[in-house]
Amino acid sequence: MSDFDTEWQKMLDGEVYDAGRREFLDRLIDTRERLWEFNNMNPRNTDALTGILRGLLGSCGEHITVNQPFRCDYGCNIHVGEKFFANFNLTILDEARVTIGDNVLIGPNVSIYTACHPLDAIERNKWVEWAEPVTIGNNVWIGGSSTILPGVTVGDNVVIGAGSVVTRDVPSDVVVGGNPARIIKRLA
Amino acid sequence: MSDFDTEWQKMLDGEVYDAGRREFLDRLIDTRERLWEFNNMNPRNTDALTGILRGLLGSCGEHITVNQPFRCDYGCNIHVGEKFFANFNLTILDEARVTIGDNVLIGPNVSIYTACHPLDAIERNKWVEWAEPVTIGNNVWIGGSSTILPGVTVGDNVVIGAGSVVTRDVPSDVVVGGNPARIIKRLA
Amino acid sequence: MSDFDTEWQKMLDGEVYDAGRREFLDRLIDTRERLWEFNNMNPRNTDALTGILRGLLGSCGEHITVNQPFRCDYGCNIHVGEKFFANFNLTILDEARVTIGDNVLIGPNVSIYTACHPLDAIERNKWVEWAEPVTIGNNVWIGGSSTILPGVTVGDNVVIGAGSVVTRDVPSDVVVGGNPARIIKRLA
Repeated sequence: MSDFDTEWQKMLDGEVYDAGRREFLDRLIDTRERLWEFNNMNPRNTDALTGILRGLLGSCGEHITVNQPFRCDYGCNIHVGEKFFANFNLTILDEARVTIGDNVLIGPNVSIYTACHPLDAIERNKWVEWAEPVTIGNNVWIGGSSTILPGVTVGDNVVIGAGSVVTRDVPSDVVVGGNPARIIKRLA
Repeated sequence: MSDFDTEWQKMLDGEVYDAGRREFLDRLIDTRERLWEFNNMNPRNTDALTGILRGLLGSCGEHITVNQPFRCDYGCNIHVGEKFFANFNLTILDEARVTIGDNVLIGPNVSIYTACHPLDAIERNKWVEWAEPVTIGNNVWIGGSSTILPGVTVGDNVVIGAGSVVTRDVPSDVVVGGNPARIIKRLA
Repeated sequence: MSDFDTEWQKMLDGEVYDAGRREFLDRLIDTRERLWEFNNMNPRNTDALTGILRGLLGSCGEHITVNQPFRCDYGCNIHVGEKFFANFNLTILDEARVTIGDNVLIGPNVSIYTACHPLDAIERNKWVEWAEPVTIGNNVWIGGSSTILPGVTVGDNVVIGAGSVVTRDVPSDVVVGGNPARIIKRLA
């Protein structure tokens, strides 16, 4: 592997990587230009919009809809299942892999973050960076204005109440809500 | 009434409706195209911007200002009173009626949701959908980054603190804050 | 000083000022037009983007990056230090001065507000307005989807957890989180 491939793999593996390398910045700009095209297109062009999206994501099901605007870092580290719907203004920082199951419904203004920085200011100022993957199960509804933090795994059949800040793993078959999100109802 | 008019009325009445019908999607796209025009226009064109807004909303007072960007689903189910001001990035999902009184001030990044999905995953995957109206009284200030959930009624003279997630009705003459929002001060 | 200069100084001094004056609206529109240019530009034009930003901010360090989109009211009341990075969708209402130190890292969808309105509806409807400054120290990481309220001072080496609503001052060397944000870890 080239040096850059090694750094890229470190990023995906959750290891500290050299985020300041030219190749990372080049890839970020490539993705932003494609998102700029996606976000500025007349929303009537649904086929062209879906085409850009398919070219951007790592993998996706046959039926997916993401409303404009959408923002992410690389795109290729996002994998979504079948029948995916995301409403306005989804933000995904996909330094680590973001895996989303089938039949997932995302409300407006939702953010999914994987990028991490040290709590220690001296380390943070060195631009030490790593990322932790986010996994969302099948049949999940993420309510609008929710935020999912790095490293979180959400089980199947979960409802994340609007405005939640999800800081820890969520088991299957529950409704969570609040900041930090807590279980407010069991569904099975 | 035509079949579609019946489904549209069901939506407004808070009944389960067939959200997958072609006519709903057509109307959503019509609104998105007008919002695309609104959101991309040079902000110096204040009269043209207000003109688009007046054409989009169900009804509104004489003096209204909504800063770009603004996003909603249909627009025609939003009714705002006199002297309405909304700052950047307001999101309204207006499947049910959203009624906003006079002298209402909305900070940036506020979301008002009416769209509901079943908590049960099997039902939700059938795209069973309904909506619950939101009513905001007169003389209300909704602080920035707040979220108002389906079915909520907010009384008169209320202040909703920045970052609130309003999950239940709010009586008149109070300040609320937090997630979920709770009364933190009585004003009368 | 001209009458307008006097009102502008009142605004910066945290006194009640006449926000309805024509000159305030003119300045807001000037800034919005420059931000419209910034937010619509192809993100590949990194030098041109940085150029617009430097022209907009009151002062800034040599190395700053602000990802599109960015929104503020005047821009000239925002002062940022060296090595500033802000991710997507930063909102700053800079009626009062917003001072940001060196080595500050801001996640996506962060809002910093200084604009205040009276809690009393009768006063508020007269458009009585004032603003309270926000100060962020050196080496601070503001996590994504956080909101900083008017009048807040954040110390050095602070981490503000994602999704926080910061309503009060934060001392140096702590991690805060939640709504309202509370100290969850001491770093020194």
